[in-house]
Amino acid sequence: MASITSLDRAGAAEALAACSAVTKREIAAMLAELYPICRSLTGDGVRRTLSVIGRSVDLTIHEVPSGTRVFDWTVPKEWNIRDAYIKDASGRRIVDFRKSNLHVVSYSIPVRARVSRNELATHVFTLPAHPDWVPYRTCYYNEDWGFCVSHRQWLQMTEPEYEVCIDSSLEHGSLTYGEAVIQGERPQEILISCHICHPSLANDNLSGVVVATLLARHLRALRLRYSYRFLFVPGTIGSLAWLSSNEHRLARLRGGLVLAGLGDPGGFTYKRSRHGQSEIDRAATKALRDSGAQHTVIDFSPYGYDERQFCSPGFDLPVGCLMRTPHGRYPEYHTSADDLSFVKPEQIAASLFICMEIIGVLEANRVFVNLSPKGEPQLGKRGLYRAIGGDAEGREREGALLWTLNLADGRNDMLDIAERSGLPFAAVAAAAETLARHRLLKELS
Amino acid sequence: MASITSLDRAGAAEALAACSAVTKREIAAMLAELYPICRSLTGDGVRRTLSVIGRSVDLTIHEVPSGTRVFDWTVPKEWNIRDAYIKDASGRRIVDFRKSNLHVVSYSIPVRARVSRNELATHVFTLPAHPDWVPYRTCYYNEDWGFCVSHRQWLQMTEPEYEVCIDSSLEHGSLTYGEAVIQGERPQEILISCHICHPSLANDNLSGVVVATLLARHLRALRLRYSYRFLFVPGTIGSLAWLSSNEHRLARLRGGLVLAGLGDPGGFTYKRSRHGQSEIDRAATKALRDSGAQHTVIDFSPYGYDERQFCSPGFDLPVGCLMRTPHGRYPEYHTSADDLSFVKPEQIAASLFICMEIIGVLEANRVFVNLSPKGEPQLGKRGLYRAIGGDAEGREREGALLWTLNLADGRNDMLDIAERSGLPFAAVAAAAETLARHRLLKELS
Amino acid sequence: MASITSLDRAGAAEALAACSAVTKREIAAMLAELYPICRSLTGDGVRRTLSVIGRSVDLTIHEVPSGTRVFDWTVPKEWNIRDAYIKDASGRRIVDFRKSNLHVVSYSIPVRARVSRNELATHVFTLPAHPDWVPYRTCYYNEDWGFCVSHRQWLQMTEPEYEVCIDSSLEHGSLTYGEAVIQGERPQEILISCHICHPSLANDNLSGVVVATLLARHLRALRLRYSYRFLFVPGTIGSLAWLSSNEHRLARLRGGLVLAGLGDPGGFTYKRSRHGQSEIDRAATKALRDSGAQHTVIDFSPYGYDERQFCSPGFDLPVGCLMRTPHGRYPEYHTSADDLSFVKPEQIAASLFICMEIIGVLEANRVFVNLSPKGEPQLGKRGLYRAIGGDAEGREREGALLWTLNLADGRNDMLDIAERSGLPFAAVAAAAETLARHRLLKELS
Repeated sequence: MASITSLDRAGAAEALAACSAVTKREIAAMLAELYPICRSLTGDGVRRTLSVIGRSVDLTIHEVPSGTRVFDWTVPKEWNIRDAYIKDASGRRIVDFRKSNLHVVSYSIPVRARVSRNELATHVFTLPAHPDWVPYRTCYYNEDWGFCVSHRQWLQMTEPEYEVCIDSSLEHGSLTYGEAVIQGERPQEILISCHICHPSLANDNLSGVVVATLLARHLRALRLRYSYRFLFVPGTIGSLAWLSSNEHRLARLRGGLVLAGLGDPGGFTYKRSRHGQSEIDRAATKALRDSGAQHTVIDFSPYGYDERQFCSPGFDLPVGCLMRTPHGRYPEYHTSADDLSFVKPEQIAASLFICMEIIGVLEANRVFVNLSPKGEPQLGKRGLYRAIGGDAEGREREGALLWTLNLADGRNDMLDIAERSGLPFAAVAAAAETLARHRLLKELS
Repeated sequence: MASITSLDRAGAAEALAACSAVTKREIAAMLAELYPICRSLTGDGVRRTLSVIGRSVDLTIHEVPSGTRVFDWTVPKEWNIRDAYIKDASGRRIVDFRKSNLHVVSYSIPVRARVSRNELATHVFTLPAHPDWVPYRTCYYNEDWGFCVSHRQWLQMTEPEYEVCIDSSLEHGSLTYGEAVIQGERPQEILISCHICHPSLANDNLSGVVVATLLARHLRALRLRYSYRFLFVPGTIGSLAWLSSNEHRLARLRGGLVLAGLGDPGGFTYKRSRHGQSEIDRAATKALRDSGAQHTVIDFSPYGYDERQFCSPGFDLPVGCLMRTPHGRYPEYHTSADDLSFVKPEQIAASLFICMEIIGVLEANRVFVNLSPKGEPQLGKRGLYRAIGGDAEGREREGALLWTLNLADGRNDMLDIAERSGLPFAAVAAAAETLARHRLLKELS
Repeated sequence: MASITSLDRAGAAEALAACSAVTKREIAAMLAELYPICRSLTGDGVRRTLSVIGRSVDLTIHEVPSGTRVFDWTVPKEWNIRDAYIKDASGRRIVDFRKSNLHVVSYSIPVRARVSRNELATHVFTLPAHPDWVPYRTCYYNEDWGFCVSHRQWLQMTEPEYEVCIDSSLEHGSLTYGEAVIQGERPQEILISCHICHPSLANDNLSGVVVATLLARHLRALRLRYSYRFLFVPGTIGSLAWLSSNEHRLARLRGGLVLAGLGDPGGFTYKRSRHGQSEIDRAATKALRDSGAQHTVIDFSPYGYDERQFCSPGFDLPVGCLMRTPHGRYPEYHTSADDLSFVKPEQIAASLFICMEIIGVLEANRVFVNLSPKGEPQLGKRGLYRAIGGDAEGREREGALLWTLNLADGRNDMLDIAERSGLPFAAVAAAAETLARHRLLKELS
């Protein structure tokens, strides 16, 4: 079984190329299968989604009954929907849930009525700035109903009266989420979380769901130091539900990533945990820098995805968020334009690769002590000095040996060494392995 | 009685407009009344000045006898002056104290003599670079005498001999300073100090005197958390005299401001305390930034006004200095050009307003603890979520709620939250008040 | 006997001018005498070099037998060489050790043979990029032999066979290094180290050897607070040999400088110790800034000279490195172009001067306590206030008095005061001396 650290030493480009042909096909297939399902905070759409994921990952499905208190919140009633439409005077379905599940405001209560255009107007949402797009709206925590239509269509709906039908149910049931654990050598855990509550929106967040699923499958095949816990949860209430029944586990959490919006064409954005300098923050920053990918690292803020919950002051967990373009910063966000044409399998594959790189850093990062700390050890007699100078690669390798020896005083981990030296993490990791093999370095236990 | 924190929530611009019409008239009247008085380190000019201030503020007048030791210094003899002139051969008063008290070097000993132009030259001070201006000079701590005249006049004084008269007295007496205390709920004090020892100079420091006086009167009308101690003291020796008899109070000093040079047309300058990051430093910096006023924040240096004494290493008090253009950085400084036309009532009113803003921050700043720290509390069920997104104000309000909840872990005060979030302090204050009202936040006692 | 701190108060420019006429002649003479000697890690060239240095400095010569273990290393056999050449078919010495000792790879084993051009090619080193220069090469720790020739000459050597002779010996002997101690008032030591193992290369490192030699002679004539230990050692193995028999001394080491490459025309480079903010780092940075000389301060890295050994994690000594252009950053580095025309006596004299300035800061730097810390002491009554303002020098002097009084709280040393105030170190030193004379300051013991 290969250790994950061999992956990043193999070189980013090759690894990516190797995995990407098959991966991209799989990504495309998974997106296509999941996209049409009408997901929400609760309901059968979520269950169906988890069952697709469960074909790739060994999932435990949790059902949390409606009414359960989770901290300051209460698990809502379960929402399901079979059909919905607006019919014109001729009885034609001019707005049809079967064409796009975005047409119905998520968590709409059942309705079946003839309503005047004026009354309908108070239940219709459009995007005047993008007249051909249908917005995505929810009314999770106040009982209401509504339709989302393109602004262009709404302007054409000039009849005085319409027939509306939402064939939904909002009843006692449960909130469903999935959890998968991949056991490593140590009980310390890395948390990977993504939200699964959005209907037919591709970037937000089928992209995160697909990355998490394939990441779990990849990790399963590797020998791992840490254990990995994957959460496929509805936003906010889902992560809170998990937190409320897993407080005993949190002390073992070494780091975590919320995955969201990983398929759009933008560069990467890593949003630091509230702590700001935890190992996951340093690992993600370094992995992104080393990857050569376009990226930005931003400070924590209490907007965004479920990092809001993991980083609330009562938990303050070392959990950051990996995205491409942040939420709300691209016009397609929360509209029908966030569709399968907006996300690209190769973007998602590259996101998966960056996740692997970050995990590669976490897995490899440790603290070493120089066993020959007085002066430099004689590298030449061990064959560790390049014979003839001049080649840049040899110089980097030698530099990594010297930096690692110099900073391996028990106070610096490998990330510290890579940061201070400016060397790629992989170069420091390779140096540390070489030096340990030559008994010049010992891991601090 | 209104709490001061309601002031900054009312919005800077309106508050300024509201108070400024009446205030500007008052400022102009106070300047006009104080300007002609011949002040110095000691003497009846200081007493007269304090009696004018005393009409607005409940002042305690302290008289410290000449010869009293204050730390390394000794209170000097009291100086008073009735008249002074230089007469030409025709007996005409060509330099006349009654026209400008700047004509006499402050603390000049009495003299009545006929002197040659050559001898007079050793007692005359001019400003060749500004030939129409009369400089301001003192000889506090070495007994001497002198006249200050415009360079143009001095060049025209070509007679071989002049009659000089300084009808002054330098005798055992006392140093006079004024003190006012406005009691708040807590014994902790904020110190506001200004120097009152300069004769007819408007910016340095009638501007500071007027701001301090009106600030005291404003504060008297408010419900205050802290107590406020105002000092109207001659420079250096006056603040030292106060310090020497108030050492027992210093442990209660939470912060302070020296007010000086607040009427000139320049932007604001806040000079940090020696500590550099005390609450007053952070409050002044944030209040200035939030105000939108042009301003600079500079580090402490041991030049300037009485912050030199408050920040000497034996005290190291959290006292900064609020100015407009720093001393010596404008050509009018310490010359007859620093007159009533140089300062503008609206500049002084705006300075007063900034002081109120800084005090508003100090009064409101406290440490809160999130009572629902695990996850975000559900703002929606409390009506704290904007119904429909889109408006910038609602977004700031919601952002302030989330930031305040997230950082209210007992380690951050409201200034920390405002600094880290980049939000105006008033937005954080409003959020904290809202959240406290909803029992989501509790002040750390 | 003059204290060294009087030197930097005398002003950099004058001191430099005063010492430079005689110094430059001496520098030129010393360079000329040392340049032709064939030095290596060991051998009589090193001994001859130390005997030249010993005429200026009271040197102790250490001989460390071949085979001695020093940490991870072993002292190598002693290498000596009498003659070497390559002869062509006509018997003419076309490559001749007697013309330049760079022609032989240092530590070449003896050889006497006729070899084909092809075989010779595996033992010949050239610099194609600089076809007229002869490279400098060594084979210290693997037994081999070789010649260095200009690329142009090598291209002209087209005969099928050559006669080669290296009349060297590589036998049990010893490693030789020199040590000089200049006793100061205190047992705490400043270490000055330079490498003496390079043959006819002027900048690397006769320049460092000459600076160290003259520095030692200068210091001997002064009253010193610290003791100074000078090491003239072969690179790496020499400093390790010294470290291995002087571990008991290291606790007394207050700071140190490795001197290397101080004669080239580039600006100064100070490379910080591994610690980065030790007193020597702050002193060197401040002395360079105050000097007005062009300079760069760079972070520690484990490449370079013997600071690599002094700053290895088992020692982590406060030792920086003073250079001009760093090693490998000028094309003449390690080639025959690093000759007597490349270094200039005035550059070396200026380097010596900077060393004196750095030492001047170390000698003068101490922690003072203000004896009149409550308020400013009255400088005027002590004649410490400039009578009439206006002159920039007086203002700096007065500013230095005020800054020194203000920051002399027992937590700041004079370097801290100079750094925070932005004043030259010499101004703070003069102020501290004046204030101590007036009993306003006391050294913290």
